[in-house]
Amino acid sequence: MTAITRQDSNARLSRAVIHNGVVWLAGVAPADCTQDIVGQTRQVLARIDELLAQAGSDRGRLLSVQIWMARMAQHLDVMNEEWINWLGDAGRPARATCQVAFDDPDLLVEIIVTAAI
Amino acid sequence: MTAITRQDSNARLSRAVIHNGVVWLAGVAPADCTQDIVGQTRQVLARIDELLAQAGSDRGRLLSVQIWMARMAQHLDVMNEEWINWLGDAGRPARATCQVAFDDPDLLVEIIVTAAI
Amino acid sequence: MTAITRQDSNARLSRAVIHNGVVWLAGVAPADCTQDIVGQTRQVLARIDELLAQAGSDRGRLLSVQIWMARMAQHLDVMNEEWINWLGDAGRPARATCQVAFDDPDLLVEIIVTAAI
Repeated sequence: MTAITRQDSNARLSRAVIHNGVVWLAGVAPADCTQDIVGQTRQVLARIDELLAQAGSDRGRLLSVQIWMARMAQHLDVMNEEWINWLGDAGRPARATCQVAFDDPDLLVEIIVTAAI
Repeated sequence: MTAITRQDSNARLSRAVIHNGVVWLAGVAPADCTQDIVGQTRQVLARIDELLAQAGSDRGRLLSVQIWMARMAQHLDVMNEEWINWLGDAGRPARATCQVAFDDPDLLVEIIVTAAI
Repeated sequence: MTAITRQDSNARLSRAVIHNGVVWLAGVAPADCTQDIVGQTRQVLARIDELLAQAGSDRGRLLSVQIWMARMAQHLDVMNEEWINWLGDAGRPARATCQVAFDDPDLLVEIIVTAAI
């Protein structure tokens, strides 16, 4: 039985769960949903950096990512630009992107990350 | 090459697949979709308990969960209450929740679980 | 720190990421979205075969799959038929299927695969 480490837990979830050299992040949504897609994407990516650092990983160790968008046709290009800028020279994860709906109508993008430690 | 163990397989899927200390469950939907969100959530969580037990895991070993809901704004609070009650003192998984659509219009919630053995 | 191998990387993503005996594929969409659900499903499954082969895996080593469909009620049965034919005698993965939306209105099915090497 391999140990499980949980970080930033609240009643519903842990922001990061580490097991067997892999960290699973909870879906990261922007704290401030009044911002536009650029601002929301930057908030999410900055928060992912924090959560990965806390887990002993970083954006260069991403394995798989799902990106959930509220208005994909409208926002995909702009989100991709922020995404690519953020990645820089880092190795790219496997990625899948789709449009879903959220309970908060102002939420535009949420990202789910799995990374190696 | 690490062994793969598959449980409860049918033509389309296996209900659980075990590999390298991790069990991947198929999306768990309620058997009886005539029930409301409380009943459907309880059915799903009870079924997850069964599948995890069969795989040698339990709700205290959850790594990552996706929760798919048909009417998220309407049902999120009630689903969360059932979810928190079910978890009790167990360590929380990483979790992401969104609204999607299903082929069955009565299906309100489906949960996808990854857990450690 | 376990090595990460990335295959077919572009600016946004890698088509396959290998780590610790598991290969994570990016969401696989059909190259030709003018085809119907049968043609699109076959394209996706053939591409998955290619990506798995390149990673040293195959359709008999699938762990977990998400299938995203644009018109699930309309297309699920036909997609399932192609899926079952493709699997043949291979062990079934854990699987979850839902309806989402895409930026391309002609895209009918996208599949996300995690497999063992």
